[in-house]
Amino acid sequence: MHAYRSHTCAELTSANVGETVRLSGWVHRVRDHGGLLFIDLRDHYGITQVMADPDSPVFAELEKVRSEWCIRIDGNVMKRDDSLINPAIPTGEIEVFIRDLEVLGASEELPLMVFGDQEYPEETRLKYRYLDLRREKLQNNMKLRSDVIASMRRRMWDTGFREYQTPIITASSPEGARDFLVPSRLHPGKFYALPQAPQQFKQLMMVSGFDKYFQIAPCFRDEDPRADRSPTDFYQLDLEMSFVSQQDVFDTIQPVLTGIFEEFGGGKKVDQTWEQISYRDAALWYGSDKPDLRNPIKMQVVSDHFRGSGFAIFAKLLENEGTEVRAIPAPTGGSRKFCDRMNKFAQGEGLPGMGYIFWRDQGEGMEAAGPLAKNIGPERTEAIRQQLGLGVGDAAFFLAGKPKAFEAVAGRARNVIGEELGLTDKDRFAFAWIVDFPIYEADEETGKIDFEHNPFSMPQGGMEALEGNPLEVLGYQYDLACNGYELVSGAIRNHRPEIMYKAFEIAGYGADEVNKRFGGMVNAFKYGAPPHGGCAAGIDRIVMLLADEANIREVIMFPMNQRAEDLMMSAPSEPLSDQLMELGLRVIPQD
Amino acid sequence: MHAYRSHTCAELTSANVGETVRLSGWVHRVRDHGGLLFIDLRDHYGITQVMADPDSPVFAELEKVRSEWCIRIDGNVMKRDDSLINPAIPTGEIEVFIRDLEVLGASEELPLMVFGDQEYPEETRLKYRYLDLRREKLQNNMKLRSDVIASMRRRMWDTGFREYQTPIITASSPEGARDFLVPSRLHPGKFYALPQAPQQFKQLMMVSGFDKYFQIAPCFRDEDPRADRSPTDFYQLDLEMSFVSQQDVFDTIQPVLTGIFEEFGGGKKVDQTWEQISYRDAALWYGSDKPDLRNPIKMQVVSDHFRGSGFAIFAKLLENEGTEVRAIPAPTGGSRKFCDRMNKFAQGEGLPGMGYIFWRDQGEGMEAAGPLAKNIGPERTEAIRQQLGLGVGDAAFFLAGKPKAFEAVAGRARNVIGEELGLTDKDRFAFAWIVDFPIYEADEETGKIDFEHNPFSMPQGGMEALEGNPLEVLGYQYDLACNGYELVSGAIRNHRPEIMYKAFEIAGYGADEVNKRFGGMVNAFKYGAPPHGGCAAGIDRIVMLLADEANIREVIMFPMNQRAEDLMMSAPSEPLSDQLMELGLRVIPQD
Repeated sequence: MHAYRSHTCAELTSANVGETVRLSGWVHRVRDHGGLLFIDLRDHYGITQVMADPDSPVFAELEKVRSEWCIRIDGNVMKRDDSLINPAIPTGEIEVFIRDLEVLGASEELPLMVFGDQEYPEETRLKYRYLDLRREKLQNNMKLRSDVIASMRRRMWDTGFREYQTPIITASSPEGARDFLVPSRLHPGKFYALPQAPQQFKQLMMVSGFDKYFQIAPCFRDEDPRADRSPTDFYQLDLEMSFVSQQDVFDTIQPVLTGIFEEFGGGKKVDQTWEQISYRDAALWYGSDKPDLRNPIKMQVVSDHFRGSGFAIFAKLLENEGTEVRAIPAPTGGSRKFCDRMNKFAQGEGLPGMGYIFWRDQGEGMEAAGPLAKNIGPERTEAIRQQLGLGVGDAAFFLAGKPKAFEAVAGRARNVIGEELGLTDKDRFAFAWIVDFPIYEADEETGKIDFEHNPFSMPQGGMEALEGNPLEVLGYQYDLACNGYELVSGAIRNHRPEIMYKAFEIAGYGADEVNKRFGGMVNAFKYGAPPHGGCAAGIDRIVMLLADEANIREVIMFPMNQRAEDLMMSAPSEPLSDQLMELGLRVIPQD
Repeated sequence: MHAYRSHTCAELTSANVGETVRLSGWVHRVRDHGGLLFIDLRDHYGITQVMADPDSPVFAELEKVRSEWCIRIDGNVMKRDDSLINPAIPTGEIEVFIRDLEVLGASEELPLMVFGDQEYPEETRLKYRYLDLRREKLQNNMKLRSDVIASMRRRMWDTGFREYQTPIITASSPEGARDFLVPSRLHPGKFYALPQAPQQFKQLMMVSGFDKYFQIAPCFRDEDPRADRSPTDFYQLDLEMSFVSQQDVFDTIQPVLTGIFEEFGGGKKVDQTWEQISYRDAALWYGSDKPDLRNPIKMQVVSDHFRGSGFAIFAKLLENEGTEVRAIPAPTGGSRKFCDRMNKFAQGEGLPGMGYIFWRDQGEGMEAAGPLAKNIGPERTEAIRQQLGLGVGDAAFFLAGKPKAFEAVAGRARNVIGEELGLTDKDRFAFAWIVDFPIYEADEETGKIDFEHNPFSMPQGGMEALEGNPLEVLGYQYDLACNGYELVSGAIRNHRPEIMYKAFEIAGYGADEVNKRFGGMVNAFKYGAPPHGGCAAGIDRIVMLLADEANIREVIMFPMNQRAEDLMMSAPSEPLSDQLMELGLRVIPQD
């Protein structure tokens, strides 16, 4: 017989009754029924009930066994009494009478119970991660993560992509975040950087003729921690293709992601048609470039109804250039109580408040209520109602000013309204491409033009477009929004050196600066670069959505805490002075 | 029609004749046949011949096109004249008459030709890696590497393993090499380390109940560069299993590797039965713990034949304790010329020389020739011949002394002899497990006991064995040798804290030291650790063997040079002073 097990703890059924078996696993729970000892023996695969009475030659030793000891037992498979069958687990029809026992690994007193649902502080959970990981939820999350990534790989291979590894110890890749640096021993005083993303390398691969690249790529950003962000490394499904337009990239990644969400989404609906929404429309309709489209609310411009109206605040505001009034329709939100609560929400977000109208049945027909309705009069109120398609029991909220100033709050109000009114369909993964991002933005105060997002994207209209007003130049640049998160980001790249230099010049970077910062890639473009584009999908985020977790540490095997420390392995730590010497470094004493 | 291509450059056959097609790719070669212009258009998938004459509306523009320009052409598929068919490529029956042309990316003058076999200095190749990568050999090597890794993953999944990612920014993992350090910004003066291997994390996963783990894992060692070693990072197929013995690990990895070598080995024979050879026997028989078993030569101890013989040098040596005489049989090596050359080889390796005997046919029967045979006389010579199973036309070489002193040279001599006599079967992948490594070794000079290899291996015989002579303790530790390389290394781990403390104590490390250096793992073992073991296979090495390359840079997409520099991306480089300030570091000026 095998030294440790003839079966896993998920395998034995009534078909094995009468067999002598060997099982290994952890003591999940011990129950002592007065001379009858029951142990739930747990391994990675499941749980089997094993038991003994004083007739067992190892009964005395068994009585010493405690929770989370790792043991090996030999015994006979027996059918349980009908009344004791547990239909919830595959091994629920049998139990194993223990005839031999070996303690493989005893346990000290547990700082964290594996059995049960007790909650522990995060510090405890991270310090004893190996115990926390034994719990069912984390076991399942890690299996899910592994299976999601395996499925991504299979799907990418099946789509004709090959995976290639890019360097991890490399040069700085200015992606907008802070680099992690790695001091060089062979070149003291010089540093490598860990890649924020394989951006430049994947573009170099396209110049090298590799046509279709993907990688489950570790990315490194020295960012200040947040609940939904790892403070050190995270993983992307990174892909790049040559000889493609934006639509080709969409057509490639969409079936991969719908496939993943269908496979692992627990039966939730998965959008099959992904709308393309311009960045401008997304801001107008949803107040966000990563709208939650499970929420059906779509904002609208209603300025005309307020221009010259009796509602002086809005009417006056609209006399200034660049101002608008926008409405957030709130179907079924037609009560003063709800409208007041939303108004308070807006105040909490720093706005003076949100005007509102709601429609109710007054016995002799519909009535529009709320101070705003009175001020603008019944005709305008009715026109607004008709534009928004609302009726009795519904409400609408209004925000006015320069859109940039209130768009974000409007977006959050939309979320809250959708949530509170139960309009947001929780049983769905809702996707849309956000497209036509502007290449540039102007600093609000200085007016200085800078890249809005990624300096490597191809401007729509190419060189010609760059000769006009930079703020009107749109890029072949896109994000994928899913349930309010940005899941994917990508672009068709600017592969023409002359357009790239021009694009950088507009943002105030001379050719020297470009050559210095992106020399590797720009040089490569001078030797026959193909048109190319791609995207990167956030894997941790996808797994969080699928596992329905709000904290990234629930989907990473060994995460750092929020102070970027590994409490279990004690990282970071003081270096040896020899190590610093070899690297030619000195630590500056901190105050 | 698609903006860039209706077909790849490998797709068109005579079935497409008459179609209007669009192709994109690189100008591999241009031939101007007086008014007839032929271009080999190349993409990732293949080559298609495209051509034009002055009737083409774009003939004038085409004449400007140069090697490695990236272009898009539209044209008509035409059947080639029978005499011009190229059966070597799938598109060899057709050519495309060009009607439209778009230059997608022009090229400056090339520092490195993609077409043809011209050799370039490594610095040029690495600086213009994106051009070098367009060449057929590197395209094939990278595809091979990608396919090998994909196949490994498929095979591991099919064997019931899941892939889990371990941290890359983490704590020092003392594996015997130098760590790369990463300064922490949030904790100035403290450093993370990049993992030399996921050793501790994979063991922690076993303690966490994950049962079967693997990872295509990047590993980081700050080592001085060599041709067959990356100076920064390399990849391992890393795996670990719970509740297993050594044989279980062998039975798991062997089918994965034989499968890989059969799939990608170009038809070479792949050993199906992998011998297990003890570390001691490997040293004796092959002079190496990673023997090349394609070479049939097996060394033997022949001390008895020389003890008290007329060959005074050996006879005297044998009077000292711990000395031996070993023979390297050399079938078909029976000529003075060959024997002298091998003797010179040994002298080049720092030995006084190798004694030899060779057997020749002197008309009236076999004669043993060489000075050694004369000294020891015909009887002993014949006994040696019979022990070694040699005959006319064969030779044997002899080395004497303390085996440690000559084993390595003997091993190299065995390689050279096998090579020169054509005994080594180049058409085979020959595998053997080297097992029973000693846990400890004694320093030759001080006699101090230290770990021979890996402090985490379980000693055979457990605690009891550690109470005896440490130098006799063997470990459940193993390497896989293939064609003279170590492809895999692994062990059954020491999962019992008390045995681990004892094992470290023998090597002079107190409990405090163990807790300090391996605290994360040792603590975990105190909470119910399962028996576990695993191994790691060197992926770069496997791909090198399969691609028949001697330099690791031929199987890595973007390798460093031997000075650990990336010449294309300019890494490492001077940090910004702001960056150093944030990290609390100062660079010590070098002399």
